[in-house]
Amino acid sequence: MNGGRGAISLPMPADTASRPAAPVTAAVVVIGNEILSGRTRDANLPYLANRLNELGVRLVEARVVRDEPAAIVAAVNELRLRCDYVFTSGGIGPTHDDITAAAIAEAFGTVLERNAEAVRRLENHYEPGQLNAARLTMADLPAGAALIDNPVSAAPGFRLGNVHVLAGVPVILQAMFETLAPGLVGGAPMVARTVSSHLTEGTLANHAAAVQRAHPDVEIGSYPFLRRGRLGTSLVVRGSDAGAVDAAVQAVIAAIRTLGGEPLTEPVDG
Amino acid sequence: MNGGRGAISLPMPADTASRPAAPVTAAVVVIGNEILSGRTRDANLPYLANRLNELGVRLVEARVVRDEPAAIVAAVNELRLRCDYVFTSGGIGPTHDDITAAAIAEAFGTVLERNAEAVRRLENHYEPGQLNAARLTMADLPAGAALIDNPVSAAPGFRLGNVHVLAGVPVILQAMFETLAPGLVGGAPMVARTVSSHLTEGTLANHAAAVQRAHPDVEIGSYPFLRRGRLGTSLVVRGSDAGAVDAAVQAVIAAIRTLGGEPLTEPVDG
Repeated sequence: MNGGRGAISLPMPADTASRPAAPVTAAVVVIGNEILSGRTRDANLPYLANRLNELGVRLVEARVVRDEPAAIVAAVNELRLRCDYVFTSGGIGPTHDDITAAAIAEAFGTVLERNAEAVRRLENHYEPGQLNAARLTMADLPAGAALIDNPVSAAPGFRLGNVHVLAGVPVILQAMFETLAPGLVGGAPMVARTVSSHLTEGTLANHAAAVQRAHPDVEIGSYPFLRRGRLGTSLVVRGSDAGAVDAAVQAVIAAIRTLGGEPLTEPVDG
Repeated sequence: MNGGRGAISLPMPADTASRPAAPVTAAVVVIGNEILSGRTRDANLPYLANRLNELGVRLVEARVVRDEPAAIVAAVNELRLRCDYVFTSGGIGPTHDDITAAAIAEAFGTVLERNAEAVRRLENHYEPGQLNAARLTMADLPAGAALIDNPVSAAPGFRLGNVHVLAGVPVILQAMFETLAPGLVGGAPMVARTVSSHLTEGTLANHAAAVQRAHPDVEIGSYPFLRRGRLGTSLVVRGSDAGAVDAAVQAVIAAIRTLGGEPLTEPVDG
């Protein structure tokens, strides 16, 4: 499930290949009152979380903020200093509530200017007479921004520094992200393996903690589930070193057997 | 859809009843590596967003942070100063990766102590012999915390100051939140009305902006949709004054007709 499609990793010298490099990190900022009011259920964070994980980029934080310049500026300026990559979603359309480009310009202390290449793409996309003043504002980008292709509806996203500004409509965000993905530099892709059983979290807790202590190079998460009326727990072992993950998985399996459980290594959704 | 079930509002003196009170605000902190790795799709933010909106509480920001004390402390300490209510989700089970209670204690500069009433509830819940040391850690709460009932599995959430610490399993989070809801003090519930049409955002943009300028007491959001192969736009008018919302809705309908569109006042999911 992980480390598959399109995984990118830096070539590493042979003598360090078995040690994980410093993790490459990312943050996501979802911009939109419609998410916070409960009107719309965000689909962009799950997509980005999955794809970044596959690319060996560790998503360390996500925020959902209102369509307000100060909220966007504060989130972007904090996260872009702390993470290798920031991705934003939403607020780059033609309407009065699309304020992301202006907020990103403010975050970087620069101004919006009409981008000639973006205008050209919009002119190519729309029928003659349809590219009105409102649509042209989608070509007003922060000075120095590099365009991100929009294969769906032409109006580009953009990158400024390490901040990647993507559309909010999921099909467009996904298309934009996939044009970027081959150029993103990930760390060693994370490997995740799940071992489930019908033992409950409280029964497993001490043994799981002992396995975690004995295997500090991996991260063991414990997730309770209820399936066909039976409680159980999935232990998820994650790490960038497949050998270390495998060793911890074997220890988890042994612990489950010690406790009288039956380890199931097929994933069970919790 | 809004302002319905269980809406709570402060009684207001008659002479100010027509003016919206200062909004009551909230933030949500979702705690969990499994969301950030893409393994699990969060269901708690949509639930809380909807319910807070119904209660007249404005959700102004949400964050998803890793299972790391520093990440939890930073998010909670920033948001609890800025918002009337903070709700966290996740990390209060019996396993080694359940660190939320300790992090909240650290955020408030206090310590964990075993809560006698929480122990009593766990003793009532488990069969004799099942309440082991790991499960008992679920009764270790920050000093001064007030319990939040858990009608599903006994182990309580807790409140410290304006921070409400809830479970991550959606059915438990929802049950905990509903025990809290009658005691939350909301502002005037927000009313939302949607007017859709098959005009595109770019066509509508100037008129929508003009309606927004003429109706500053409401918030007009513009959301493109693609339905049965046809593009369109939903304009969502939100505000705490039903009369102001209605006036803006009428203006939106007039604008759509001016542009040759057919206003649809049934909601169209975007």
